[in-house]
Amino acid sequence: MKITDVVITPIAMKDPPLRNIQGIHQPYALRSILQVGTDEGLTGLGETYGDLAILSALRKVAPRLTGLDPFDLNGLERIIRETLGATAGRATHGLVGEASDEKTLATVLSAFEVACWDLQGRALGRPVVELLGGKVRDTVPYSGYLFFKPSVHNPDPGYEPDRWGEAMDAEGIVAQARRMVDGYGFKSLKLKGGVLPPSEEADAILALRDAFPEHPLRLDPNAGWTVESSIAVGKKLDGVLEYLEDPTGGIDGMAAVAREVSMPLATNMCVTAFSHIPPAVKVDAVQVVLSDHHFWGGLRRSRELAAICRTFGIGLSMHSNSHLGISLAAMTHLAGATPELTYDCDTHYPYLVEDVVQEGVLEFIDGAVRVPSASGLGVDLDLDSLARLAEQYDKCGFDTRDDITPMRAVQPGWDPVIPRW
Amino acid sequence: MKITDVVITPIAMKDPPLRNIQGIHQPYALRSILQVGTDEGLTGLGETYGDLAILSALRKVAPRLTGLDPFDLNGLERIIRETLGATAGRATHGLVGEASDEKTLATVLSAFEVACWDLQGRALGRPVVELLGGKVRDTVPYSGYLFFKPSVHNPDPGYEPDRWGEAMDAEGIVAQARRMVDGYGFKSLKLKGGVLPPSEEADAILALRDAFPEHPLRLDPNAGWTVESSIAVGKKLDGVLEYLEDPTGGIDGMAAVAREVSMPLATNMCVTAFSHIPPAVKVDAVQVVLSDHHFWGGLRRSRELAAICRTFGIGLSMHSNSHLGISLAAMTHLAGATPELTYDCDTHYPYLVEDVVQEGVLEFIDGAVRVPSASGLGVDLDLDSLARLAEQYDKCGFDTRDDITPMRAVQPGWDPVIPRW
Ligand SMILES: [Mg+2]
Ligand SMILES: [Mg+2]
Repeated sequence: MKITDVVITPIAMKDPPLRNIQGIHQPYALRSILQVGTDEGLTGLGETYGDLAILSALRKVAPRLTGLDPFDLNGLERIIRETLGATAGRATHGLVGEASDEKTLATVLSAFEVACWDLQGRALGRPVVELLGGKVRDTVPYSGYLFFKPSVHNPDPGYEPDRWGEAMDAEGIVAQARRMVDGYGFKSLKLKGGVLPPSEEADAILALRDAFPEHPLRLDPNAGWTVESSIAVGKKLDGVLEYLEDPTGGIDGMAAVAREVSMPLATNMCVTAFSHIPPAVKVDAVQVVLSDHHFWGGLRRSRELAAICRTFGIGLSMHSNSHLGISLAAMTHLAGATPELTYDCDTHYPYLVEDVVQEGVLEFIDGAVRVPSASGLGVDLDLDSLARLAEQYDKCGFDTRDDITPMRAVQPGWDPVIPRW
Repeated sequence: MKITDVVITPIAMKDPPLRNIQGIHQPYALRSILQVGTDEGLTGLGETYGDLAILSALRKVAPRLTGLDPFDLNGLERIIRETLGATAGRATHGLVGEASDEKTLATVLSAFEVACWDLQGRALGRPVVELLGGKVRDTVPYSGYLFFKPSVHNPDPGYEPDRWGEAMDAEGIVAQARRMVDGYGFKSLKLKGGVLPPSEEADAILALRDAFPEHPLRLDPNAGWTVESSIAVGKKLDGVLEYLEDPTGGIDGMAAVAREVSMPLATNMCVTAFSHIPPAVKVDAVQVVLSDHHFWGGLRRSRELAAICRTFGIGLSMHSNSHLGISLAAMTHLAGATPELTYDCDTHYPYLVEDVVQEGVLEFIDGAVRVPSASGLGVDLDLDSLARLAEQYDKCGFDTRDDITPMRAVQPGWDPVIPRW
């Protein structure tokens, strides 16, 4: 089996005005959709960031893949390294830690690697989970992801307002959580913090604890706090959080917090590449790593990360960016084959109102998604939807994720300083 | 595809009287040969230690595998854990570090796991190397493995003497090396030490350096030396060894040596399970780990080890016990797909005079073995040879590796004390 052609389609999907430390989500989130064709007539799917820098790197690599065997993942990595080299660029955003050439390489690798797994599975008539070592769980539990948010974008993008309404205080967050739990059955909840002063966000967590006494809770201010503020929140939420995620920035900062608080600290910011692991281990900076196949280099590299976490006694959870069904399928296969994963995964999927995959495979039941059983990733493109979202990309006026500019439209002079408090 | 039956055949193969810190090889080395059959009529091959404790564990697990999909490696591990549990036993020998329940589990897992990879490859019509991510090298380089040895066993087992003759001093080792290099083309050489006093073994290395100025050299006394002796040898061989392997015992001992010598320290004794890695990393005890799929838990776990070594800047080499062609094929596929492997692999294969696999696939050319290109492991059983070696097992009178008793036949009162010097 040989790769014969690659089609890369940037798409834009409607996205609610979700707040975070950098600002606020744009009205459209961008993704790149990959269709990797072979001489056997099969097509493998991949999905990653839609930012122009990534799109450009994907497009550089694509023509070099002609003739590659989709089983040859080492060859894929070699081609990508040769093509992008040490000038891969710094194409990821601040919410997943420092950008680097290495992370850009890993991101490009992941997008094609997932498509190769899809092709392998389709060729063999087996779901990807079986190629990753076999199912260790039939369904993959996700957490309900809560965001502070206004009710509408500013300026109004001209499409229907989202169904989540405003949530700018504890009461709004509890109401949002209620809809998440009622609608999707989530058994755990995560609050994106870094928006209100730390003590108010801690109060929102306490309100969630009152409203959902059995749900494990997480709080993630994306390194928005000083070490001192982080320790204060950690002490206030002692016994309440299953983990506190990236309260402060950097391995040394996290280690300083970890020494003073009782709950595990999690990260998708200070440990986001293999080179970050040794220094983090050395000072016991983090007790949980949020894997993300999109920037760790794919499913295979994510399993390596899992083995490292198992070996060093570090917990393993899973990070999410705004994503579509191809990514959700890949995340679910990966989690389905990863015994080391001991926390519910993150997902933005409930905020989605449009997708490029055909309906019916990816459903949340009791907060979990069943590992797809069809060949490959188990999802197929809806070509009409793909075309519509591609057209939306052309018209939306965005080519890069930028949470700062739309925030400035609301709050002139907004400065996404870290730490803020 | 489902497993329908497992045949486990213990075999004995003629083995030269190779010396080491514990004593001397018995006249027969023992291996277990696995044939794992499926409902599709395919048979997958595995090979591991033949010691009674391992054989007994393999036999306990075998009937539990009926119905298992050979792709379900997570399921395989689950069944083995359920079957052997925490009382797996301590079935490995001292030359690969401390025995443990965990290592026995990993050993049993590996034997069946390799057979599963063989089945996957045969079912897909692909060599195992392709299922492991694809070839990163066409041929796998091995090192010439030198041993101090007398010319014959005592008592004489009654079969033809080996072709290597006596080598009990530097001159003998250089002559042995010459035959290894001339006959197999090895580009690097390893001396098994722990037999003569350390300074004499260092002199043997210096003699090798004179005779083979371009060959990387290694010395492995199997933890036979004190920290002080190790440092003395390390200083004497400064600039001569590519690595010094297990000069002394234990993570702390190795760390103490590592701080004082210039060459990397390698191990297949103090880091032989994932649980040993964090303490070793903490004190920088070893700079090279010798992987061995037989006791690290198979090909998948060996690739995890490779990822850990890559991440922590630890070199990766490969360990060998006396083995047959199934193991050599598995080692070669694994090494062929492992970019992290940066040293020539060890092998006892040149000492072999009989095998259970059909001839013609595994040849040493310029010290390297071509990664087999046929489906699965690429080797097939010679059933006549298997039957003959099984009969030899029944007659040889050994059921466990024991290097001490035959040494006492030569040297009454022999005590395999460590450290000796
Ligand atoms: Mg986060
Ligand atoms: Mg050794």
